[in-house]
Amino acid sequence: KINPDRLWDSLMEMAKIGPGVAGGNNRQTLTDEDAEGRALFQTWCEAAGCEMGLDQMGNMFARREGTDPDALPVYVGSHLDTQPTGGKYDGVLGVLGGLEILRTLNDLNVKTKHPIVVTNFTNEEGTRYAPAMLSSGVFAGVHTQDWAYARVDAEGKTFGDELQRIGWRGDEAVGARKMHAFFELHIEQGPILEAEGKDIGVVTHGQGLSWTEVTILGKDSHTGSTPMPMRRNAGLGMARVLEKVDEIAWSHKPHAVGAAGHIDVYPNSRNVIPGKVVFTVDFRSPELSVIEDMETRLRLEGKRIAAEMGLEISFEKVGGFDPVAFDEGCVRAVRDAAERLGYSHMNLISGAGHDACWINRVAPTAMVMCPCVDGLSHNEAEEISKEWAMAGADVLLHAVVETAEI
Amino acid sequence: KINPDRLWDSLMEMAKIGPGVAGGNNRQTLTDEDAEGRALFQTWCEAAGCEMGLDQMGNMFARREGTDPDALPVYVGSHLDTQPTGGKYDGVLGVLGGLEILRTLNDLNVKTKHPIVVTNFTNEEGTRYAPAMLSSGVFAGVHTQDWAYARVDAEGKTFGDELQRIGWRGDEAVGARKMHAFFELHIEQGPILEAEGKDIGVVTHGQGLSWTEVTILGKDSHTGSTPMPMRRNAGLGMARVLEKVDEIAWSHKPHAVGAAGHIDVYPNSRNVIPGKVVFTVDFRSPELSVIEDMETRLRLEGKRIAAEMGLEISFEKVGGFDPVAFDEGCVRAVRDAAERLGYSHMNLISGAGHDACWINRVAPTAMVMCPCVDGLSHNEAEEISKEWAMAGADVLLHAVVETAEI
Ligand SMILES: NC(=O)NCCC(=O)O
Ligand SMILES: NC(=O)NCCC(=O)O
Repeated sequence: KINPDRLWDSLMEMAKIGPGVAGGNNRQTLTDEDAEGRALFQTWCEAAGCEMGLDQMGNMFARREGTDPDALPVYVGSHLDTQPTGGKYDGVLGVLGGLEILRTLNDLNVKTKHPIVVTNFTNEEGTRYAPAMLSSGVFAGVHTQDWAYARVDAEGKTFGDELQRIGWRGDEAVGARKMHAFFELHIEQGPILEAEGKDIGVVTHGQGLSWTEVTILGKDSHTGSTPMPMRRNAGLGMARVLEKVDEIAWSHKPHAVGAAGHIDVYPNSRNVIPGKVVFTVDFRSPELSVIEDMETRLRLEGKRIAAEMGLEISFEKVGGFDPVAFDEGCVRAVRDAAERLGYSHMNLISGAGHDACWINRVAPTAMVMCPCVDGLSHNEAEEISKEWAMAGADVLLHAVVETAEI
Repeated sequence: KINPDRLWDSLMEMAKIGPGVAGGNNRQTLTDEDAEGRALFQTWCEAAGCEMGLDQMGNMFARREGTDPDALPVYVGSHLDTQPTGGKYDGVLGVLGGLEILRTLNDLNVKTKHPIVVTNFTNEEGTRYAPAMLSSGVFAGVHTQDWAYARVDAEGKTFGDELQRIGWRGDEAVGARKMHAFFELHIEQGPILEAEGKDIGVVTHGQGLSWTEVTILGKDSHTGSTPMPMRRNAGLGMARVLEKVDEIAWSHKPHAVGAAGHIDVYPNSRNVIPGKVVFTVDFRSPELSVIEDMETRLRLEGKRIAAEMGLEISFEKVGGFDPVAFDEGCVRAVRDAAERLGYSHMNLISGAGHDACWINRVAPTAMVMCPCVDGLSHNEAEEISKEWAMAGADVLLHAVVETAEI
């Protein structure tokens, strides 16, 4: 069993870097705070006797040697970056849970046949640079590195330049590593485990996602002296599209969700009718056909609304992944571990995307989930108990050690 | 008659300061560009033999002496600040048109009994600091100076600090000056004069305005893993309120307009359901009762929508003025001047707010309007012809000289 106090202390230490405004964190990818968090993680890994690898996407790999020089490593990890108003556990628990496994194995002086590598993937959240899970995506061959480097943030800074700037661009080719298996521990970010009173979610599937960036062009003009019939109000067009997004998601109840979290209005002046709005629609479902239907209807309804209002509308897919089925063997290892340790558990479909969803394409993969209070995440008030964290890390330990073989 | 080429050259010189991205201007109030524009205006005024006064709100007053030491000055002017994506004429024409009057009187060696003072009022646009017409409002005793100094921009900088920083805070008490009359030349910013083929708008009234800042609070949470029924989506609440704003304005057709130009969404991340949105609703009408009705219905409908969706909503009035009737004598002076000069003219109700609307409370006031292409303003593509500018400045010259007496 892992040491829950040590795990918790490390979580709290990490949370001191990039504090938020309401008790959570703002440690967005490729900021100075991200660099500081990485350095702390590296210090801890080195203290645990690991060597740190760093690839050209800034993905970090802390390796604990195995006994068989020919055996591929078992990877375990998640991400240390956060939302702008994020919690202390989303991603971080998976990385520091992985570190806690290494520390526990060191304490017990247990050697595994396969090496174990704890990973921090760069830019999982996708806030500063769309899409989410960018660097695990490059690792899995879903995106090219050049394309990833060219992503720009709201200030026009590229991913490549910012990675270089914070000093965490490594030399290693991305995706060159071969994995025996990959495990990711994560908070559920939804309400099901808590509602069902279960300690552990055995994640069998992940729902798919589609991000469509919508641009509506109207004409900026004076809010006072432009008569109502002459207005081409891009903000009002957006309002009508947002209503449709909600309607479309509900129409697939209970197997779909939809919303827009990102909205920019130009020129954003009280007395100027918006001439341009840019917003991103996030649709998800465990069923690919449902996602495709929602995308199609968004475009149809959006075009209809724009045409009615004399607006121009355009759509760009800025992120997306298909629903995922995790590896049966790895899923079984998670379920067996929970069973063996006596933790209550249930199967889950992940509502969020995770690095594990991409890694599943190049290695046998599974996820362990633990509950979070009120299912709340992507919120500074995100909360878990030390017991939940312990159960998750214990199950992770056992699944990993079973797979890495003693 | 004024010199149209000289007026036009000055307009083009000023437009070089704070160029926009599409041929217009971004010379927002209390920026370095504002300071540069002020300095250029001062240079020109001094070259025209005027002395520059500066009050504690940064309002500028360039004085040409009269022959009667006891006569109150006739004031003429507008503002040099622009929208973030504004045009080259909104405000600027009124200030440089005033300067052109002084230059013309100098050329002709005409002395007036009353001094003539050309004015540049600080922060007319209200984009960076709400409300609009802030400094003419303090001048007219509508706002206190302390309140004005405490206005904050989106970055948290106060009006008072920024005025100090750019070096244009004067010593003169605001509103201490007494005016014999005030005239403001401005582009129409609407389509009526062009549609009717008239050179000059004789502005008899100004419509009233109400700015309500609406804050909607939901709960930021994950766009993927938060089930639809558990969402409290402040962005969707805003969409529904925006639809109502449009409906309410149309219900008073053709005597009202309504829209939201300013919208901020928090935390503005693609995979976070908006937990907070702040937006400003701009309602206008020439009838006070209509404005009051629209305000009331906004609050009622907003509360109903919020209650239905489990959101919190609050309203703050951040700007407003009642409909204005300009001084009959000054309006007649404008109409007579247009008539005498042979320019076609018609009565107009100003759709926009202007410094003249506040000054009308403390001095006999009127406005001269000239057409603008397609009625377009608050847009970098705002355009007027040299002939339109000339007609407006000619009428301004004659109305002012008649009032200032030779
Ligand atoms: N786990 C998580 O929040 N990942 C970010 C990608 C997503 O929006 O699902
Ligand atoms: N003229 C003008 O655009 N003034 C700004 C105040 C308003 O929004 O009417």
